[in-house]
Amino acid sequence: MTLGSASARPTSSRFPSAHSLTVGGRLFLIDCGEGCQMQMARFKVPFSRLDNIFISHLHGDHVFGLFGLISTLDMTGRLSPLHIYAPAGMDGLLKTISDYFGQVKFEVVLHTVKCSEPTLVAEFKNLEIYAFPLRHRIETYGYLFKEKEPQMNVLKSAIPEYKLTLEEIAMLKRGEDVLRKSADGKEVVLKCEDLAYKPFEPRCFAYCSDTAPFPKLPEWIKGADLIYHEATYASDLRALSRTTAHSTSQDAAKTALAAGAKTLVLGHFSSRYRSLDLLLDEARQIFPESYLAEEGMIFDVPEKTSPKKLL
Amino acid sequence: MTLGSASARPTSSRFPSAHSLTVGGRLFLIDCGEGCQMQMARFKVPFSRLDNIFISHLHGDHVFGLFGLISTLDMTGRLSPLHIYAPAGMDGLLKTISDYFGQVKFEVVLHTVKCSEPTLVAEFKNLEIYAFPLRHRIETYGYLFKEKEPQMNVLKSAIPEYKLTLEEIAMLKRGEDVLRKSADGKEVVLKCEDLAYKPFEPRCFAYCSDTAPFPKLPEWIKGADLIYHEATYASDLRALSRTTAHSTSQDAAKTALAAGAKTLVLGHFSSRYRSLDLLLDEARQIFPESYLAEEGMIFDVPEKTSPKKLL
Repeated sequence: MTLGSASARPTSSRFPSAHSLTVGGRLFLIDCGEGCQMQMARFKVPFSRLDNIFISHLHGDHVFGLFGLISTLDMTGRLSPLHIYAPAGMDGLLKTISDYFGQVKFEVVLHTVKCSEPTLVAEFKNLEIYAFPLRHRIETYGYLFKEKEPQMNVLKSAIPEYKLTLEEIAMLKRGEDVLRKSADGKEVVLKCEDLAYKPFEPRCFAYCSDTAPFPKLPEWIKGADLIYHEATYASDLRALSRTTAHSTSQDAAKTALAAGAKTLVLGHFSSRYRSLDLLLDEARQIFPESYLAEEGMIFDVPEKTSPKKLL
Repeated sequence: MTLGSASARPTSSRFPSAHSLTVGGRLFLIDCGEGCQMQMARFKVPFSRLDNIFISHLHGDHVFGLFGLISTLDMTGRLSPLHIYAPAGMDGLLKTISDYFGQVKFEVVLHTVKCSEPTLVAEFKNLEIYAFPLRHRIETYGYLFKEKEPQMNVLKSAIPEYKLTLEEIAMLKRGEDVLRKSADGKEVVLKCEDLAYKPFEPRCFAYCSDTAPFPKLPEWIKGADLIYHEATYASDLRALSRTTAHSTSQDAAKTALAAGAKTLVLGHFSSRYRSLDLLLDEARQIFPESYLAEEGMIFDVPEKTSPKKLL
C-alpha cells in the first residue's frame, strides 16, 4: 500500500516515501518518510504486525518518519525486536533517537546493507528479500521481494492409480522423477511433470527508488510481477532528472518493459506537478500497465494458483 | 491555527503538537511535531513567511517535524535566517540534520531558552515574547505572546480646541500630562487621560504545553485573552496525569479561570480518547469558554479597538 507518493517536498495531499507490503500475512515497511505513522493509522496498517523495515537510502524524505514510528511502537508496549535493513549510517540516526528521547524498551536490530549486485539480505518461510544497488546521489538500494518456489503437489488421482508409496510421494514433491522396476525387470519412469504440479507460481515485487535508469536494473528485477519505480519528473525535465540522479516516468516505463513486468506503479512525484496525468500518459505510451501511486492505494498481485489445484 | 492536537501518539486524524500564530502579519510556529510541514501545506500556512519557531521542549512529539520542515525550507530556496527558540539540547538535533542531510543554505539561529520565571526572549516591533518554565518531566517552557502597549492617540477635536503644539502632542502620545502656564502665571494641567486615548488594548496569547498544573502558572499568564493549554487526560486519569507530569482538562480550566482568561483552547489529547466530549464537558463546568483544538481550526482574538478611535 502506498503511504507516501511525494518526493523530497511533500504537498497538501502527498506524503514523503513510505510503503507497506503484505506477503502471506507478513507485514513489511519499505522506506519511512515523515508522517508514515500517521498514514499507517489512517489506513489501518497494524503497528503490532510490523517487524521488518527496509530503507532504500538515508535521504530525509525516506527516513524522517522513523523517529516518530519507533517512539510510537515503544508507547504501544512493544517488546519484540524490530529489524531495520538500511545502508551504512543508520546507526547514527537511531542514536539520535536514544540520545534525545530515551532508550526504547524493545530491541532495534540493525542490518547494514552493502552490495554491488543482487544479494539475499533476509529470508522468511516463504519469502526471500534481495537488495540491489541503485544509481542515486548517495548509497541507495532497491529491494526485491520473491516468494520461494513452492513444493510440488502430487495429483490426488495419481496416488491410487500408481499406488505411490510415501517415499515416492516425497520424491515427487521435491520435483524428482520416480524410477521403478517393473515385474519383468524393466525400468519405468514416473515423471514428476505428469504426476505432480506446482501449486502456484511464486510472485515477485521490486522496489526501485530513488534511482536514475541504468542497463543492469531491468536485468536484476527480471520477471517481477509488480514494480514500484520512482518517477520524479515528466520527460520535460529529463535533463534535471540526470543531474539529480532521478527518473522520468518514461525511464520507469522502459525499465518495466525491459524487465518483462506485469504492472508498474509510479511514485515519488515532484511537488511541482499538480496533475500527474502527463507523467502517466508518457509512461503508458511505453508500458500500458502503468499506474500512479496514491496515498492509501493498494496494488494487489493475485496469487497465481495452478488450475490443476482444483482437479 | 492548530496544526496538531495529539499527544505523543498521533491518531488517524490528530497530528502531534504544532501551532501557527499570526500577529500583525507576522507568522510564528509553536512546536513542530511530525508532519507539521504537511499540515502547513494542507492549511495553506505560507512557508515563506516563517522566520521564528518556538519549541516548548525536546520530546519527540514536539520536535520531530523540524527535520522535514528545515529540509523543505531549504528546497524552497530560502536564504533568510530561521530563528529557533528552544531549551538546551536543540543544537544536537540540528547537527543530526546537517550531519546526515547536508548543510542548509540559510542560517539557523538558535536561541537557547533558560529561565526560572517569565523572561523576555524575543522582541518585535509591536510584540514581546516571554518564556516561562512549565512543570514537565524534562526542561519545558511555555510562551507568552504580548502585544506592546500602543502609543496614545490624541483626540482630533482636542488639537484645535487647546491649540496643542507639536511638542505637546508628542508628550500626550507618550502618555504624559501637559503642563502650561496661563497668562496670569497660573499652572494649568492638560491631562493625558482627557485629551488622548489608547487606540487599542494589547492582546495576549499564552501557550502552556506540556505541563502539570502549578500555582504560579495562572499568575504568570494573568489576563491572557487566549490560552492554549494541554489537556492530555479527562479527570478519570488524574492520577496518571500526575505521574506523567501532564494536565487533565479540568486542570487546564482551573488555570484559565485563575488567570482571568477570555478563551481556553484544549489540546495535546491522549490517543485513547476517540471522543473528546468528556474532556470538553469537564473543562466547561469550570471554565465555560473552553474549546477543543482541532487540526485546521483558527482561534481568533479580535483586535480590541478603543471606541474613541471612531470619534
